[in-house]
Amino acid sequence: MDSESASESFVDRLRSACEVNRSWLLVGLDPDLSTLPAGITRDVHGVMEFNQRVVEATRDHVIGYKLNFAFYEALGSEGWQALERTRRLIPPSLIAVADAKRGDIGNAAEMYARAIFDNMEFDAATITPYVGLEGLRPFLERRGKGSFIVCRTSNRDSSVQELSTAGGPVFQRVAEMAGTWGDNAGLVMGATDLEALAAIRQLLPDVPFLVPGIGAQGGNLERAVQAAMDASGGNALMSSSRSVIYASSNSDFEEAARREAIMLRSRIANATAQT
Amino acid sequence: MDSESASESFVDRLRSACEVNRSWLLVGLDPDLSTLPAGITRDVHGVMEFNQRVVEATRDHVIGYKLNFAFYEALGSEGWQALERTRRLIPPSLIAVADAKRGDIGNAAEMYARAIFDNMEFDAATITPYVGLEGLRPFLERRGKGSFIVCRTSNRDSSVQELSTAGGPVFQRVAEMAGTWGDNAGLVMGATDLEALAAIRQLLPDVPFLVPGIGAQGGNLERAVQAAMDASGGNALMSSSRSVIYASSNSDFEEAARREAIMLRSRIANATAQT
Repeated sequence: MDSESASESFVDRLRSACEVNRSWLLVGLDPDLSTLPAGITRDVHGVMEFNQRVVEATRDHVIGYKLNFAFYEALGSEGWQALERTRRLIPPSLIAVADAKRGDIGNAAEMYARAIFDNMEFDAATITPYVGLEGLRPFLERRGKGSFIVCRTSNRDSSVQELSTAGGPVFQRVAEMAGTWGDNAGLVMGATDLEALAAIRQLLPDVPFLVPGIGAQGGNLERAVQAAMDASGGNALMSSSRSVIYASSNSDFEEAARREAIMLRSRIANATAQT
Repeated sequence: MDSESASESFVDRLRSACEVNRSWLLVGLDPDLSTLPAGITRDVHGVMEFNQRVVEATRDHVIGYKLNFAFYEALGSEGWQALERTRRLIPPSLIAVADAKRGDIGNAAEMYARAIFDNMEFDAATITPYVGLEGLRPFLERRGKGSFIVCRTSNRDSSVQELSTAGGPVFQRVAEMAGTWGDNAGLVMGATDLEALAAIRQLLPDVPFLVPGIGAQGGNLERAVQAAMDASGGNALMSSSRSVIYASSNSDFEEAARREAIMLRSRIANATAQT
């Protein structure tokens, strides 16, 4: 990382990464041995080959990649190595998001931030807000690094985020708090709750959003984009995993992933233009 | 693991682990390179030597060990290897807790549970409740494995757990939900909020608690034990990390850790006897 990019704010970093491919599409590299396409060995070597070929096929069409740590941890210490190596496959001009959903306090929070931002040099991370600001601070304080706080997810059963308080549901309170947590705070806002997406965007016009769930539920893509984007038509990473990387289960998976990425990028751009 | 212990419920498993050393003391193995004692090299090899010697020194006085994943992840893939190897140092008759505070949905939650329970064979894990039951289910469904849901932590600033709802603060709502989530659900209840500890124990007389924060804040140990234990004087893992493993920064650290563990075990037992 050169000194110029190190002093850039995360929002600026997002904007310049978007310029590279004129894309707000974030692709999730979530390798699951049981769904790797034909011809890829179902082990850590296969995972690396798969990730490398998917990145090669899609890197000219995306703003960056999101690595969900769960899929790597399920493969043990070799999986963690694959995580580190996959992170290095991501071109420096694009955004590398550590989708780790960490949330702890004190020293442990600092150690998690160290692993993600210092050691592996991810540009951004997802973190969970339950323990409060103390646990998030080590992430939020990292200059130029984005921290997307889990605010609204797609699931609906017995969830803390939906409990109602006098000031609105918990997820709205989290959004309000995040709005006071400085330049590096962003939010994870699921694409399935369009109403929440639009309301929180109005509340926080300048905060970056990470919006998962746009692939499988394609019908809402356009509306999710329109709800999530800021006034200048940006600041929202629209994230898709399976619909891109598993676009084909056969040996044409690279071409299929590329086609899907190009299609999603263009649908996002068109939807943005209509706002 | 033999077939008998595999069919045991987690609460039974806790009870029999307690019998081994007549102890409810859980020791946190949180190796921080900067605080390793004199004579231990400040790298992953040093971490393994340190953990091995601490386990050797304390294993006759504890109910088990808690590994906070953050401290291992900060050391990269070698750190993850050290995590796997440290888990294997824990005697099978004792409890091995994965203090990972994971919290994700869908497939990712399943992958985290696989890493912790299937691959590394931990007996219990800590998980965060923000995303709701869907994300916790893969953990809660693992037969005989304990899942401690983060309910009340010691920090107090801008925290979701303290937001008030019509039915009480969020942490109380989490406790109430956890009470309906089956036999494997436990709670992480910080020792610093004695009032919450006592109230939630009354609410949930049979749910296992994991109680961190008893070392540094030693003054409250007795009161925390009395608030946390169930009617039979059990079902609460009283957890201490730094005060045991860093009891001495010199070459006598094993003896110091052993002495501290014996002292804490006996203070816990005495406090329990007074209830």
